Amino acid sequence: MVRFFVDEAVFNSEIPVLTDENFKHAKVLRLKTDEKIVLCDGKSNEIICVVKEIHQEYIELEILKRQKSLNEPKVKVSVYMALPKSDKFEHVIQKATELGAFEIVTFPTARCVSKLDEKNLLRKKERWQKIAESAAKQSMRGCIPEVKVLPDYKTALEEAGKAENTLLFYENENSVMLKSVLKEDTYKTISIITGPEGGFEKSEIDTARAEGVKVCSLGKRILRCETAPLCALSAIMYDYSEF
Amino acid sequence: MVRFFVDEAVFNSEIPVLTDENFKHAKVLRLKTDEKIVLCDGKSNEIICVVKEIHQEYIELEILKRQKSLNEPKVKVSVYMALPKSDKFEHVIQKATELGAFEIVTFPTARCVSKLDEKNLLRKKERWQKIAESAAKQSMRGCIPEVKVLPDYKTALEEAGKAENTLLFYENENSVMLKSVLKEDTYKTISIITGPEGGFEKSEIDTARAEGVKVCSLGKRILRCETAPLCALSAIMYDYSEF
Repeated sequence: MVRFFVDEAVFNSEIPVLTDENFKHAKVLRLKTDEKIVLCDGKSNEIICVVKEIHQEYIELEILKRQKSLNEPKVKVSVYMALPKSDKFEHVIQKATELGAFEIVTFPTARCVSKLDEKNLLRKKERWQKIAESAAKQSMRGCIPEVKVLPDYKTALEEAGKAENTLLFYENENSVMLKSVLKEDTYKTISIITGPEGGFEKSEIDTARAEGVKVCSLGKRILRCETAPLCALSAIMYDYSEF
Repeated sequence: MVRFFVDEAVFNSEIPVLTDENFKHAKVLRLKTDEKIVLCDGKSNEIICVVKEIHQEYIELEILKRQKSLNEPKVKVSVYMALPKSDKFEHVIQKATELGAFEIVTFPTARCVSKLDEKNLLRKKERWQKIAESAAKQSMRGCIPEVKVLPDYKTALEEAGKAENTLLFYENENSVMLKSVLKEDTYKTISIITGPEGGFEKSEIDTARAEGVKVCSLGKRILRCETAPLCALSAIMYDYSEF
């Protein structure tokens, strides 16, 4: 069943409708009367609907059943990724959404080459959020991960630190493995932090440790900055028996 | 330490040298006398060398120590991916190499949109192998995964079936999870098979089952064709305690 994310007003209405972007998308998909679709509020609530009538500018639906989304992982993983170059962050937003990330957060570190200028930030955030929404639709998620931008590394550590388990992956860490710091089903919230192209500075690792972050390894092969968060996310979902 | 993949003759010589492409790369990296580097034969053998003398057209090395590569995973995972559109296969070659794939194999299936025409195949294979080599260098691999092209799905099933454990990921499989068909450290060789953008046809799944392939799920969220093999590979490496 195709899914559409709608706002609260539509989601809570007795006779929900598809309008604007959703309407256009429905036309592209050639949605037909009597076809079943899923409406999502993006917060894990869904309605199974049937297409009642296709009007000139909107589509009228009939509610069959309200339910909790069945496709959200039990564990909430927040992906903290130091801002990489150009389109790599967009790649990570798309893939992390498919893989079940709860939210995707970026922030600058000492070795980040890319800079976020105030002027373009709003436009970029909008674009990034759209990528997350589109990936959530395609992968049948019940939630759309929020894409956040934090002003500095210190704030990122603070925010990431609010999870029950906060992990940072560092290529020079050789002894502590991800497996040893995960305990299946124990944590409801996990933050994973990864560095930019040039890696973290030693002092940044020290700061993280001082904040109680667990610094660990993703193995002997050096992963690119855009591969590391997705590898870690896959492994965590696997560890939590998501597949 | 920077690593260079060299041919057998250079690898076995008493005084190895960097020439041609490797020489150019060394110049770009501004390699200096007395700097340590790693020479690899691409088959898990390495030599720690020191730069002895930089000549006009080649660099003379001195052997410090021959050793087995320390960075290769214990389990050999062959990645079988139905040919996707355009640059997605290149993406998977790069990422699967970083993540420790033993080999990367593509083949056509009923719903493949891309076609491999005989004329361009040689040129493409060369390009694909170069991507694997470059990713192997960057990720510090001791082996370069071979990129192979098979003529049809039947051959792919036969070849993949030579592994001790052969898995196929299918989005309509809801009960058999990857976790249930992996047993940590039990298998030395695993093949993973994933479909094209449009997925496998039901009849292709039946054929795979008839051949003894284990059909399993990567969870409730639908992964894009280029995400699935990398997610599975990450999970297998994690299961085998690679990180």
